[in-house]
Amino acid sequence: MVDFTFRNSCEIVFGRDTECQVGALVKKYGGRKVLLHYGGGSIKKSGLYDRVTEALRREGILFEELGGVQPNPVWSLVLEGVSMCRERGLDFILAVGGGSVIDSAKAIATKLVYDGDLWADCFIGLKKVTNALPVGTVLTIPAAGSEMSESMVITREEVGFKAGAGGQAIIPVFSILNPVLTYTLPPYQVACGAADMLAHMMERYFTQVRHVTVSDRMLEGAMKSVVKLAPLAQRQPENYDIRAELMWAGTVAHNNFLGCGRIGDWASHGMEHQLSALYGIAHGAGLAIVIPAWMKYVCESDMARFARFATHVMDIDPEGKQEHAVVAEGISALEAFYAEIGLPTRFSEAGIPSDHVDELSRMACIKGPVGRFQPLEEEDIKAIYKLAL
Amino acid sequence: MVDFTFRNSCEIVFGRDTECQVGALVKKYGGRKVLLHYGGGSIKKSGLYDRVTEALRREGILFEELGGVQPNPVWSLVLEGVSMCRERGLDFILAVGGGSVIDSAKAIATKLVYDGDLWADCFIGLKKVTNALPVGTVLTIPAAGSEMSESMVITREEVGFKAGAGGQAIIPVFSILNPVLTYTLPPYQVACGAADMLAHMMERYFTQVRHVTVSDRMLEGAMKSVVKLAPLAQRQPENYDIRAELMWAGTVAHNNFLGCGRIGDWASHGMEHQLSALYGIAHGAGLAIVIPAWMKYVCESDMARFARFATHVMDIDPEGKQEHAVVAEGISALEAFYAEIGLPTRFSEAGIPSDHVDELSRMACIKGPVGRFQPLEEEDIKAIYKLAL
Repeated sequence: MVDFTFRNSCEIVFGRDTECQVGALVKKYGGRKVLLHYGGGSIKKSGLYDRVTEALRREGILFEELGGVQPNPVWSLVLEGVSMCRERGLDFILAVGGGSVIDSAKAIATKLVYDGDLWADCFIGLKKVTNALPVGTVLTIPAAGSEMSESMVITREEVGFKAGAGGQAIIPVFSILNPVLTYTLPPYQVACGAADMLAHMMERYFTQVRHVTVSDRMLEGAMKSVVKLAPLAQRQPENYDIRAELMWAGTVAHNNFLGCGRIGDWASHGMEHQLSALYGIAHGAGLAIVIPAWMKYVCESDMARFARFATHVMDIDPEGKQEHAVVAEGISALEAFYAEIGLPTRFSEAGIPSDHVDELSRMACIKGPVGRFQPLEEEDIKAIYKLAL
Repeated sequence: MVDFTFRNSCEIVFGRDTECQVGALVKKYGGRKVLLHYGGGSIKKSGLYDRVTEALRREGILFEELGGVQPNPVWSLVLEGVSMCRERGLDFILAVGGGSVIDSAKAIATKLVYDGDLWADCFIGLKKVTNALPVGTVLTIPAAGSEMSESMVITREEVGFKAGAGGQAIIPVFSILNPVLTYTLPPYQVACGAADMLAHMMERYFTQVRHVTVSDRMLEGAMKSVVKLAPLAQRQPENYDIRAELMWAGTVAHNNFLGCGRIGDWASHGMEHQLSALYGIAHGAGLAIVIPAWMKYVCESDMARFARFATHVMDIDPEGKQEHAVVAEGISALEAFYAEIGLPTRFSEAGIPSDHVDELSRMACIKGPVGRFQPLEEEDIKAIYKLAL
């Protein structure tokens, strides 16, 4: 185990009808004039918007609205949010939506109080965010784990570049998780969400740090659960228990409790961000394309760990097989899982052209080599993209 | 899954030499005049006392001392601590020690600001603690998990009665975990600690709540790790990695992250508290006596779960066996594990007389039936104690 500090003070309020507590929670955490931030119109159609605004009014909380967050949230809308907060003296950002809405809210909350060039320092540079307005969330899509994480990912649309930043200051002060709100998610979004949460655990699981068996075993258990739950959630969209478990798994995957004492990899996220920034595909779909290729490219640096993943997560029976065969079966089983839930595992299946691999590779390592499990230079990244064509 | 709220804002600072950060951490969390609370003289012999006080002085933090916490910490010392804090205007309780010292510190921090009869309301009654002075800890014994938990257990020595209370307000603001500090723990204390952390996970694992597979799998993984790590820590006391993993497991076991969405049992803790209050045995030893007997008594109410425990935690091969045989083998393997690490599993092995079972049983359910997995009345408790004679 490596030395670590851990602190995550987000309050999770989990269960049916919990969105009705949002006014009381905003008040508890000091919000008086709220920026209500959301995506398209789905929260209005579903009635969630009405329940949330009613709960705010009941507690006498004023709010202004900024909708329109797109998947892969963009910097220009962040700037718009910042202006609104400044002009109207807002003191709390309430995100109602999935990871994109929450990330956009976190970026507004940070940019508003940041003295300097936030993009250059924290998204391109490696500086941690240390101050932000409080953010609360009502989660509608179990996927990104942003509801309890210290990270955010934003796209600069004018240059087609997606980058992440983070720090304890942007962990939401509360997050409301009502599994019923996820009943209407279409199967493809369920799949993308499952791939995202699985990836958050894989990025932590594949580490060169030794003696992390306690979190190894917890990660294996949680990953295996996601593999079992995702197809069930697609087949039984209104099964509360399955939705609840999958929703909680998404939070567990990324609140970093399972990353304590480990050094995560995060190369796959780095390589995926270029795909979704340039081609607009969903983050989860991009991960399903990149991760199997990454596994094939790097597995030899720790075959035993990849074999454990195969047996303990993907249920491969290792009896009488050589290690490399177990590893290969594990990767195939992961690809089959992605395919089963309807995700692409190749550029071609996602309609991504194969002739920009050089440019993608250059962009992916613009901050330097990516990944800690096996640091990848531009040539490595190119080889991995090519395995995924 | 059942509805839940979860918030645990304790900052964990984990690694070598981390106790030298204690002054800065006390300052960060607002402490200026500290009650330094500890047990016997071991922290002076080991040099830990000097490092902690030096770190406090370096930050200009004043402190007064109160040592003398015994295993199974007592109410009278709590009252002494409260008086000291009042007389000298102390504003922060720093616990340097194991679970007993931390629980004593939590009780002082609570009693000091409680308006009313704390013992009657929160230890005998079921009222939650909602306010307390900040507590920080430097952990020396991985066991109780009190360093990141919202519970405390105190003994009224004049009546030989041990009781627990809790609430978010007593979660320490920070806890320093340096595995090196645990190198000198004698094997028996390692064993008691492992039994305690395992019990914290078992109390959460054995639930009647359905559809909790994500935390089921994480609990199984973490429990299995403890079973593997404890004997290794006894045999290789100065192996940093093993000590580190066991120390982190103790925190994981009781910070309630793994209890989210579940209803824990806690009958075994209730039954054990009477043994340690009356006979002064270590809590972990008492648990090793009570838990196998409890398992034998209640397992029929969910054989499938006990069989999973047998196969996924105790490594019993279920191939070709009937479920009840697998369950029985699992319980035997747990008893063998306790015996291997040097713990008693019977009253007789711990020198506890067999003729006070009636009185013990009456006391154990003085607040009402104990346990949520299968609520136990006085007659059930008596039967369980008798299975453990």
